[in-house]
Amino acid sequence: MSAILGAAVLALAGQAAAQLTGRGFPDCDDGPLKNNTVCDLTADPLDRATALIKAFTLEEKLNNTGSTSPGVPRLGLPAYTWWQEALHGVASSPGVNFSDSGDFSYATSFPEPIILGATFDDELVRAVATVVSTEARAFNNFDRAGLDFWTPNINPYKDPRWGRGQETPGEDPYHLASYVHALIDGLQGGYDPKYKRVVATCKHFVAYDMESWNGNFRYQWDAHINSQDLVEYYMPPFQSCARDSNVGAFMCSYNALNGVPTCADPWLLGDVLREHWGWTNEQQWVTSDCDAVQNVFLPHGYNDTREAAAAQSLIAGTDINCGTYYQEFLPAAYAQGLFDISVLDQALIRQYSSLVRLGYFDGMAVPYRSLTFADVNTPASQLLAHQAAAEGVVLLKNDGLLPMTITSNMTVALIGDWANATTQMQGNYAGIAPYLHGPYYAVNQTGATVMVVGVPGGQGDPTTDHWRPAWAAAEAADVIFYIGGIDDTVESEGMDRNNLDYTGAQLDVIGQLAMYGKPMVVMQMGDQLDNTPIIENANISALLWGGYPGQDGGSALFDIVQGKVAPAGRLPVTQYPSDYITQIPMTDMSLRPNATSGSPGRTYQWYTGDAVFEFGFGMHYTNFTASIASGSPTSYGSSAPSTTTYNISEMTAGCSEKYMDKCPFETFSVDVKNTGSVASDYVALGFLAGCHGPAPYPIKRLSGYQRLHNISAGSTQTAALNLTLGNVARVDDYGNTVLYPGDYALMIDTQPLAMVNFTLVGAPLVLDKWPQTPTPRFQATDYFVGGYGSTYGQELMVNGTLFSDLA
Amino acid sequence: MSAILGAAVLALAGQAAAQLTGRGFPDCDDGPLKNNTVCDLTADPLDRATALIKAFTLEEKLNNTGSTSPGVPRLGLPAYTWWQEALHGVASSPGVNFSDSGDFSYATSFPEPIILGATFDDELVRAVATVVSTEARAFNNFDRAGLDFWTPNINPYKDPRWGRGQETPGEDPYHLASYVHALIDGLQGGYDPKYKRVVATCKHFVAYDMESWNGNFRYQWDAHINSQDLVEYYMPPFQSCARDSNVGAFMCSYNALNGVPTCADPWLLGDVLREHWGWTNEQQWVTSDCDAVQNVFLPHGYNDTREAAAAQSLIAGTDINCGTYYQEFLPAAYAQGLFDISVLDQALIRQYSSLVRLGYFDGMAVPYRSLTFADVNTPASQLLAHQAAAEGVVLLKNDGLLPMTITSNMTVALIGDWANATTQMQGNYAGIAPYLHGPYYAVNQTGATVMVVGVPGGQGDPTTDHWRPAWAAAEAADVIFYIGGIDDTVESEGMDRNNLDYTGAQLDVIGQLAMYGKPMVVMQMGDQLDNTPIIENANISALLWGGYPGQDGGSALFDIVQGKVAPAGRLPVTQYPSDYITQIPMTDMSLRPNATSGSPGRTYQWYTGDAVFEFGFGMHYTNFTASIASGSPTSYGSSAPSTTTYNISEMTAGCSEKYMDKCPFETFSVDVKNTGSVASDYVALGFLAGCHGPAPYPIKRLSGYQRLHNISAGSTQTAALNLTLGNVARVDDYGNTVLYPGDYALMIDTQPLAMVNFTLVGAPLVLDKWPQTPTPRFQATDYFVGGYGSTYGQELMVNGTLFSDLA
Repeated sequence: MSAILGAAVLALAGQAAAQLTGRGFPDCDDGPLKNNTVCDLTADPLDRATALIKAFTLEEKLNNTGSTSPGVPRLGLPAYTWWQEALHGVASSPGVNFSDSGDFSYATSFPEPIILGATFDDELVRAVATVVSTEARAFNNFDRAGLDFWTPNINPYKDPRWGRGQETPGEDPYHLASYVHALIDGLQGGYDPKYKRVVATCKHFVAYDMESWNGNFRYQWDAHINSQDLVEYYMPPFQSCARDSNVGAFMCSYNALNGVPTCADPWLLGDVLREHWGWTNEQQWVTSDCDAVQNVFLPHGYNDTREAAAAQSLIAGTDINCGTYYQEFLPAAYAQGLFDISVLDQALIRQYSSLVRLGYFDGMAVPYRSLTFADVNTPASQLLAHQAAAEGVVLLKNDGLLPMTITSNMTVALIGDWANATTQMQGNYAGIAPYLHGPYYAVNQTGATVMVVGVPGGQGDPTTDHWRPAWAAAEAADVIFYIGGIDDTVESEGMDRNNLDYTGAQLDVIGQLAMYGKPMVVMQMGDQLDNTPIIENANISALLWGGYPGQDGGSALFDIVQGKVAPAGRLPVTQYPSDYITQIPMTDMSLRPNATSGSPGRTYQWYTGDAVFEFGFGMHYTNFTASIASGSPTSYGSSAPSTTTYNISEMTAGCSEKYMDKCPFETFSVDVKNTGSVASDYVALGFLAGCHGPAPYPIKRLSGYQRLHNISAGSTQTAALNLTLGNVARVDDYGNTVLYPGDYALMIDTQPLAMVNFTLVGAPLVLDKWPQTPTPRFQATDYFVGGYGSTYGQELMVNGTLFSDLA
Repeated sequence: MSAILGAAVLALAGQAAAQLTGRGFPDCDDGPLKNNTVCDLTADPLDRATALIKAFTLEEKLNNTGSTSPGVPRLGLPAYTWWQEALHGVASSPGVNFSDSGDFSYATSFPEPIILGATFDDELVRAVATVVSTEARAFNNFDRAGLDFWTPNINPYKDPRWGRGQETPGEDPYHLASYVHALIDGLQGGYDPKYKRVVATCKHFVAYDMESWNGNFRYQWDAHINSQDLVEYYMPPFQSCARDSNVGAFMCSYNALNGVPTCADPWLLGDVLREHWGWTNEQQWVTSDCDAVQNVFLPHGYNDTREAAAAQSLIAGTDINCGTYYQEFLPAAYAQGLFDISVLDQALIRQYSSLVRLGYFDGMAVPYRSLTFADVNTPASQLLAHQAAAEGVVLLKNDGLLPMTITSNMTVALIGDWANATTQMQGNYAGIAPYLHGPYYAVNQTGATVMVVGVPGGQGDPTTDHWRPAWAAAEAADVIFYIGGIDDTVESEGMDRNNLDYTGAQLDVIGQLAMYGKPMVVMQMGDQLDNTPIIENANISALLWGGYPGQDGGSALFDIVQGKVAPAGRLPVTQYPSDYITQIPMTDMSLRPNATSGSPGRTYQWYTGDAVFEFGFGMHYTNFTASIASGSPTSYGSSAPSTTTYNISEMTAGCSEKYMDKCPFETFSVDVKNTGSVASDYVALGFLAGCHGPAPYPIKRLSGYQRLHNISAGSTQTAALNLTLGNVARVDDYGNTVLYPGDYALMIDTQPLAMVNFTLVGAPLVLDKWPQTPTPRFQATDYFVGGYGSTYGQELMVNGTLFSDLA
C-alpha cells in the first residue's frame, strides 16, 4: 500500500501541472466576463485590463503571478502559459505543444541567430521573424501555443566561451540593436499595431553572458560593469527593444549587476527600463528568467527571507515570476506588509493589458485568427530558411577550388561529426523541423557517389578505433569534405566552453585526410574555433564557417560549394586564437584592454591581439570596389563628405526626435561595383574610427551596414548608410552619450575599400544623460588582477559629479 | 545508389569491429599451435610466449599491437580483446558482453571505490575483489569477457573537483597503497599464483588527476611535479601495485609528467616501473590509456610525426596501444627504422606470457574454468555488497535522533534526487546490477507509508514548478529524509566539478523542509560537498554521507538509520569548504601550502584551512576509548613504546627484505574499548606527527589502520598497527625515502583517543634511492603564481648532487 501511496504523490504532481497548462480563449460572448469592460473592444486596453483585475479576489491575484497562470475559473478566465519559445522558429517549450504527427507536428526551423547575424541583412531578419509570428499565431489558433514568446536573446556575445552565444546575432552592439529592431517588427507585426502578432521578450536584461565558468554560475554571478561599458556595450540592444521598438516584454536575468540581482533592481527595471527608455504604457511586462526570483534568495542571498525576495522583486518591477516563488511566498509577504496591493495590481494589469493588445479577449475580430496549419512551413518559408542559411555561411579560405562542380560520376567523401547532421543543424531552443537536409542529403542530390563517415574523433571519445572508415573514404574519393567542429554537446545553455581549439582528435584526422593530397574542403560548424591549422595547411583548399544553419543547412552549404549561391556572409564575431581565453577570465566584463590585469580587450573594437579572422571578415567568389559618394545634403553639412566639417552646435537644428541620439547625422551613399565575373551579394559595412571622445579610442566601431543583393558582374549598386548622431557619439565614464569634437573616419569593409574623413567641431553635446543609481554602488575599475586568491579592486563612484570629464 | 554506397561504408566499419571482438580459447589439443611450445603446459611461461611470437610474421606482429587484437587465424590464435573493466564489479566495456536476459545478464555491483575506501577494511576489499574475479572468470568461461581488467584506478584523489575521484579509495597515499595490495590479491588470486584469476591493471600511471578544468584537458595536460611530491604522494599506490603486489598490468596515462607524455617516457616506464620496482619478469605489460599514443602526437605534439610518436611509445615501454595508432603507424615506423623488431617482440611476449599465466592456453587444467553463472551474484556476494555499503557510509552529524525505529504506522517522506535512486547508486564504470535497492525500496520494507518526491531542484534545471509535491510530503510526514547531493551528471569521466556547494536549488529546498520542524535527516550522496549549511541548521538532526553505495545502497543506508548496522565508516577524503577551489588551481600539483601562490595546501596532511570535516572523520552510535599497549618486542626497541628511543643504525639489523623500507619498525597494539551501549565496528587510524625530516612537516600522516568488527558494548578489542620503516620514513627533495632522526608521535584517531611519543636517533638512513631522470628535466618549484597570463616559475634541477640536504 505504501508503494501505491508513494506513486500517488508523484501522479498528483503531474496532474496539477497538466491542469495548469490548459488554454483557450476567454468567452466574451457568453462567459461570466461578458459584461466586464475587458470584453469591451472599444475601451482603452489599460482600462480593460484594470477592470478585469478589479474582479479578482486577493487569492486570485496572488495565484496568477507565475509563468503558469491558473486563470480564474470563476470568471471564465482560462489558464494561460506565459512561457513560449521561438528563437529561430516556433520552439519546444512549456507553452508549445507540437502534435505527434500531421498538422502542427512541425514548424519552420530557421538558422540560429548567429547565422542570421552573419547575413547582416535586416530585411531578411524581418522576413524570418514575420514567418515565425505567422506560424506562432497558427499554433495559437489551434490551442497549441500561447501568444507570448520569450525571444530574442539579445545579449552581446563578447566572450567566445559563452555556451549561448549561438542564440545571439554576434558581438557588436550596433549590429544587435539594428537586428533586433527589425526582428521585433516581424515578431510583433509593427512597432505599435492595434493587434500585436505575438509579444516578443528581450532577454536577458542585463549582462547575463555566462553559464558556468570556473566556479561562477549564472544563478549567482555578480557582473561588475562600469557605466561606460554598460551603456556603450551591454545596453544598446535593450534600448533598441524598449525605447525604439516597443517590444512587449522584457526578461530580467539570473545574474546580479554591481551587487543587485537584476530582477530585484528598481533602478534597472524602473529608472532605466521604464523611465529612461519611456517603456511606460503599462501594456508591457517583465518576467523573471526561470526561477530568477528564487535565486534572489538563494544563491544570491540578496534578501534574508524568501518573502522579502519575492516582494522586493515584485516592487522592483518583475511582473511575472517564471516558476512558483511568487505564488508560494507573496501571500506571506503580503500578510507581513512587505508590498502594497497596488504593486500587485500593476503587475497583473501589465500582463492582461498585454493580452488585450494581442486580441486575447477579442475573438475573431483579430485578423490573425484565421491562420491555420496551411500557413506553416509554406514553400515560401522553406525558401526563406534556405536563403537565410545561404546568406549567413562565411567563406574563410579559398585557393580557387570553390566554386566547384559536383557531377554524378564523382566520388565525394563527407567525413566528420556533421557529415550527416540532422538536429545538430538546429542548435538550441529549436522546434521540430519539417525536414533536416544535412550535407549528406545535399550531396546526394548531385547524383555523385557519396561516402559518409560520421564519427572520426570529433565530439565524445576520440578513440582511433573509429577512424579507419575515414581513410577508406578518403582513398576512394575525388574530393574530401571534412564537416565538423563543435555542436551543442560542447556549447549550450548551462555549459560554457573552455577551449577554442577543434575538440577531440579532429585536427589529427583532418591532418591525415589532407595528406591524401586530394581536393579538400573543411566546413567548420558550430561557433568559432581557432582555424589556424586549417589556414596553414596548404593541402586544404577551402574553409567555410557554417554555424547552426537550420533545416536546410546542408543544402545551403553545398549550394555555395557549387556556386549556385555566391558566399557573402560575414563573421558576426571575432575568431580569436585559442590562447585568448587564457588571457582574460570570463568574469571580466570590461571591454578595454588592461595592462594591469593583462586583458587584451574584448571584441574587434578593443582586442589588441591578432585575430585569426576579424569581425566582419568574409570572402567572395568575385571582387568588389567601393566609393563613398556625396552624403545627402543636409542643413548642417557642407560640401562633399570627404572634406566635411560639422559644427556640433548646429547638428540638432530641425530635428524633432524625442531622443537626440536618433537625430540624423548623415547618409553616406556607398557605390559598390562587382569587378569580377560572378554575381554576388555584398555587405557594405561602415566602421567609424578616429580620435574623438574619451581615451582610449576603439580601433573602430560599426556604425552602419547594408546588404546589397545579387550585384551582377560588372555592375554597381549603392548602399545607403544612415548614420544618426547616436551612431557617431561615444559614451563617457558616467554612461552619458556624448557627441564629441574630433577627427572621424568612415571606412567601408574590414580591409577598407573606401574611406572618408570628417571633423566635428564645437563643444561636446550630451545626447543622452544616463540615469545614475539612487545610492552609490560599487563600480569596478579593475577586475581579477591577481587571479586566484586576489580580490577585486574597487572604488566608490559618488553620483552628482557628472560631466566633469567634459571640461 | 549513392545513398546505398554511403551506408555501406558505415556498415563495413561496424562489421570490421564485430570481427575483431570474436573470442574463445586457442585449441592446444588439435589446433595449428598444438606442437608449438606455447601449448606445453610444463614449459616456462616466458619460453612459451617467445615460441608463439616466433611463429608470427612481421605483419601479424604489427597487427596485434592494439587493444583489439585480431589474433592470428593462420595459427588458430583467436582474436582477443584486452579491454575489460571491473571497477566495482564486472562492468560494461568493449570486452564484456552482458546478455539481454537470463544467465550473464547481470553481475554483482559493489559500491564505488570511494565507499570501499571509507570502510578502511582491507579484508573486505580483498573479499570484494575475490568475488569480482570469480564472476569475471565465470563470464570468461562462457565467452562473455576476456581475462584482463583495466582496474583499479589508484591515482590519489587530491582535488575534490576531479570527476573520477569516485573511482578511487580516497586521498591518502598510505591508505591507497594498503588498499590496492589487498585488492590485487583478490583480483589476481594471490601475489604469484600459478594461474592468475584475472590480470588487474593499475592506472593511470601517473598523475592523471584531471579531466577538464579551465581549458586544461586530460589529453594534453603536462603535470609539473617535483620529486618529493611525486614519490611521497603520487607514486606509493603504484609502487604497491608493481613492486609489492605483482600486478599483471599497468596503464600509462593521457597526461605528460614534467614535459614527457607518460606513454612515451622510458624513464617512467623503464627506470622507475620495471627497473626500480623490479617489475621485470616479462609476464606483465603496459597498455596506453585509450588513444594516449595518438595524444603523444596530438595534442601533446611530443613527436613531429605519427610514426615517431608510435615508435617512441613502443620503445618507452607501452606494450599495448588502446586504439589503433600502433596498427596504423608502426608499419611505416618500422620501415623508417624507428624501432628494432626486438622491441616489438618484447611487447608481444609480455602480452602473451601474461595470457599464459592466466591459463589461456591450458584448457581445463585451469581451476577457474569450472566457474559458471551459478557463481555470479550468490547470496554471499549479495550480502557482501550490502556489507560493503553499510561499512562505508559515514555518519557526520547526529543530535540523537539516530538510530530511530521506522514503524508501519509512520509516514516517511523521502525527498530529493536520490530518493528513488537506481543506477545513480552505481556511479561510473558500472555493470548491470541484479537489482538496485534504493532508499524508496528500503523504507518500503518497513511497512511505513512512504511519500517519494524525486525532483525538488537538485541536478538539472532547478525550477520551482516541481517543488510543491515536496511540501505536501513534508506536511504529511512523521519524519523527513532529504536524499540528494550530486551524481554522475555533475562529476564523471571527462567532467570535473567547479563547485563544492549543493547544486541547483537544493539548499533552498532543504531549508524549507527544515522549517517544518519535524525530525529530519539529510543523506548526502555522491562525492563530498560543503555541508556547512546542514551542520548549522539546528532543525536537521542527522547527516549521513552515502557516496555511490552500489546495488544495495538504499538498504544499507536505512539499516544504519534504524540501527541494524552501527555506522563506523570514515571519510576517505577531506571535506573542504566550498571556497577551497578558489584558492588553488586544479593544475597545481604541489601538496604543500605556498605563501607565494596562495595555495592553502592539499589533503589533510598539508591543508592549513579549517576543513568542514577532516579526513578520517566519522561518528558512531556509541563511544570508544583507546590505549596503546606495549609494542611487540623487537631486537632494536627498548622498553614501552611511550618512552622508546630507536637508534637508526640498528634498525635494519636482521631484516631480510629486499627493499629496506619494508623492514618492520614496530607493531603497536591498540586496545579499543566500547564504552557505550551499542555494539559497533571501529576503525583504528594511526597518524604520525612530529618534527623529523625535511621541513615543512606535514600536520600528520596516516601510517597504519585496522577495522575492528562488532565490538560489543563494554568489551575491548585490539588492533595491531604494523609500521614498517617505510611508514615512518619521509621523502627528501630528490625523491629519496629516508629514515630521519627526530621526534615522532603516533596518534589514534582524528581527535586522538591515545598517543605515544618516540624518538629516532642517529644519522639519516636512505631506505630507497630514487632513480633520477637521465637528462635533467624541468622541476616545478612554483606553480601558477600570477594566475592568468603568468608563466610557471621553474628551475632546472641538475642530477648528481644527491643527499646534500642530509648534511
